[in-house]
Amino acid sequence: MESTFLLIVEIIGTLAFAISGIRLAAVKKFDWFGAYIVGLVTAIGGGTIRDLFLSTTPFWMLNNWYLVVTAIALILVIIFKKFLVRLDHTVFIFDTIGLALFMVIGMQKSLDFGFPMWVAIIMGTITGAFGGVLRDILINEEPLIFRKEVYATACIAGGLSYWLIYFLGGSTMLQQITCAGIIILIRVLSVIYNWRLPVLGNDNNNSTND
Amino acid sequence: MESTFLLIVEIIGTLAFAISGIRLAAVKKFDWFGAYIVGLVTAIGGGTIRDLFLSTTPFWMLNNWYLVVTAIALILVIIFKKFLVRLDHTVFIFDTIGLALFMVIGMQKSLDFGFPMWVAIIMGTITGAFGGVLRDILINEEPLIFRKEVYATACIAGGLSYWLIYFLGGSTMLQQITCAGIIILIRVLSVIYNWRLPVLGNDNNNSTND
Amino acid sequence: MESTFLLIVEIIGTLAFAISGIRLAAVKKFDWFGAYIVGLVTAIGGGTIRDLFLSTTPFWMLNNWYLVVTAIALILVIIFKKFLVRLDHTVFIFDTIGLALFMVIGMQKSLDFGFPMWVAIIMGTITGAFGGVLRDILINEEPLIFRKEVYATACIAGGLSYWLIYFLGGSTMLQQITCAGIIILIRVLSVIYNWRLPVLGNDNNNSTND
Repeated sequence: MESTFLLIVEIIGTLAFAISGIRLAAVKKFDWFGAYIVGLVTAIGGGTIRDLFLSTTPFWMLNNWYLVVTAIALILVIIFKKFLVRLDHTVFIFDTIGLALFMVIGMQKSLDFGFPMWVAIIMGTITGAFGGVLRDILINEEPLIFRKEVYATACIAGGLSYWLIYFLGGSTMLQQITCAGIIILIRVLSVIYNWRLPVLGNDNNNSTND
Repeated sequence: MESTFLLIVEIIGTLAFAISGIRLAAVKKFDWFGAYIVGLVTAIGGGTIRDLFLSTTPFWMLNNWYLVVTAIALILVIIFKKFLVRLDHTVFIFDTIGLALFMVIGMQKSLDFGFPMWVAIIMGTITGAFGGVLRDILINEEPLIFRKEVYATACIAGGLSYWLIYFLGGSTMLQQITCAGIIILIRVLSVIYNWRLPVLGNDNNNSTND
Repeated sequence: MESTFLLIVEIIGTLAFAISGIRLAAVKKFDWFGAYIVGLVTAIGGGTIRDLFLSTTPFWMLNNWYLVVTAIALILVIIFKKFLVRLDHTVFIFDTIGLALFMVIGMQKSLDFGFPMWVAIIMGTITGAFGGVLRDILINEEPLIFRKEVYATACIAGGLSYWLIYFLGGSTMLQQITCAGIIILIRVLSVIYNWRLPVLGNDNNNSTND
C-alpha cells in the first residue's frame, strides 16, 4: 500500500522533472538526444548522487522504467512544445511537484538505510534539488537554486515538518504528505509574494557591480 | 588473449582521449598542470563515473599507467603542438577512436559485473562520452555532446549492434569489433554528410533567438 | 594525541575553506542559503569525492559538526563582510591553510585504507583542491586551479615531501607537518615571486586569441 503510493509518486516526480529539464533544453535548442539526457539528468541526477552517498547502486540501474518515463516526457514535449516551451508557469508547476515528491522519497530511503533524521533531510534535499543543479551545470548556466525563489529552503522546511510529525507520533504517510504539502505551499507562496532570502554581498556598491 | 586485446585497446583509447583533452586545454591557454588534469579527466572521467555507479574502486586507482599515458600525451602535445593544436581533424580522429574503444570496455565491464545488456549500453556510453562532458564542464563550455555531431547516438547504435551479435551467437570479440566499427563508421559518415539530430525548440523564431 | 591533532586541523581547514567559498558567493550576490551551500561544497566537496573513490560513506554524513562549522563561517562572513569581502589576501590565507591541512588529512585516510603512496598523493590533492573546483563549477566560473598560481602543484610537492620523510623514517606527525609546511611555503612564495607554470598554447598568435 505505502510502497505503491511511493511508486506512483516516483513516476509522477520523474515525469515532472524530466519535462522541466527537456523544456529548458528546448529553449537552448539542443538536439533530441541532448534534450533526453538533460531531462534524464534532471529527473535521476539528485537520486543518483543520494545513492552514491548511501553507498548503494543507483536506483535507475535496477529498473528501466525511469528511462521509459523520460522518453515519454520527451515525446510529450515534442508534441506539445508550443504550449510547454512558452509557459514559464508549466515548468514551475512540474518542478515544484517533482521537488516535493523527491524530497519525500529521498528522506524515506535514507531513514530505511539507518541514517539519522538530519542526514535524511540533507539526502531528501539532494534528491529533490540536485537534479536541477546538475541540469544547470550541464547546460552551462549558474544554478538557479542559488538565486531564484525559496527552493532548497522549502525542502528543509518540509524536512523539518516531517521530523516534527514523526516526533509527535504521526503515521509515515502523514509525515510524507505534510512534508510534500509544506514544500508545495512554500514555493507557491514564495512566488505569489515574491519571497527572497537576503542576499549576501557588499550592499553599498550594488549599482556598479550589476 | 582477449584481455591483452582489451588492454591494448584501453591504452590507445586513453592516449587518444588525453590528447583530445590536452589540445582543448591548450586552445584555452591553460598551464601545463591544468592541461594535464583536463587530459586526465577526459581520459578517465567516464570510466570513473561508471565505476562509481558499479560500486567498485575507480580503475585508475589500481594501476598507475593511466597517469603515465596521460603524461606521455602531454609531452606529445607540447612537442607537436603546432601540428596538433591547429588541426580539428586530429582531435576528431582521436576522439572517435577513444569513443569506440571505451564503449567496448565499459560494456564488457558492466556485463562482467552481472548487469543486463541495457545497463551495459548505458555504462558503455558513459565510459565513452562522459569524460568529454566532464572536460567541457571543467573548461566551462556547454558540453559539445548536446549540440554537435551524432556522438552518443553512435555509442547507442554500437551498443545495439553488440547486443544483436550477442543475440545471434557471435563471439565476444566479434561483438566488440562490430560495436567499435559501427561507432567509428557512424561518426565518420555523420561528419561527411553533416548528419544532425532534429533540434528541439520553437522553430518559428530561430532567427531572433540565435 | 595524533587523532586530536588531525581533528583540530580538520576543523580549522573546514572553517577556512567555508569562509573562502562563502566570500566568493558574496561577491556573486548569492542569497544566504546559496552562499551556505557554496561554502559547504568548498569545504567538504574534495573530501566527498575522495570518500566516493575510497568506496566509503562521505565523512560529513557521520558527524554533523561540518554543517555547524560552515554555519559559523556564514555568520562570520555576514558580520565581518566589509572586511572579508574586500580583502583578497584574506581568501588567499584561508585557502592556503585549508589546502595544506586537507592534503594531510586526505593522504592519511587513503594510507589508512591501504592504498599506496601515489594514490594517497592524488587523494590528498583531490581533498585539498577539488572542493574549490566544485565551487567554481557551481558558481559557473572556469576553475581557478587551471590558471592561477601554483595550486595543485604545491599539493603534489607537499605529497612528495610526505613520501620522502616517510622513506627517511620520520614520524607520521613529522611527515604531516613537513607536507603542510611545504604547501604553505610554496603558495606564499609563488604569490610573492609571481611563479607561474608554463602555459600550453600556440605562442605565436597570443595577441589575436586573447
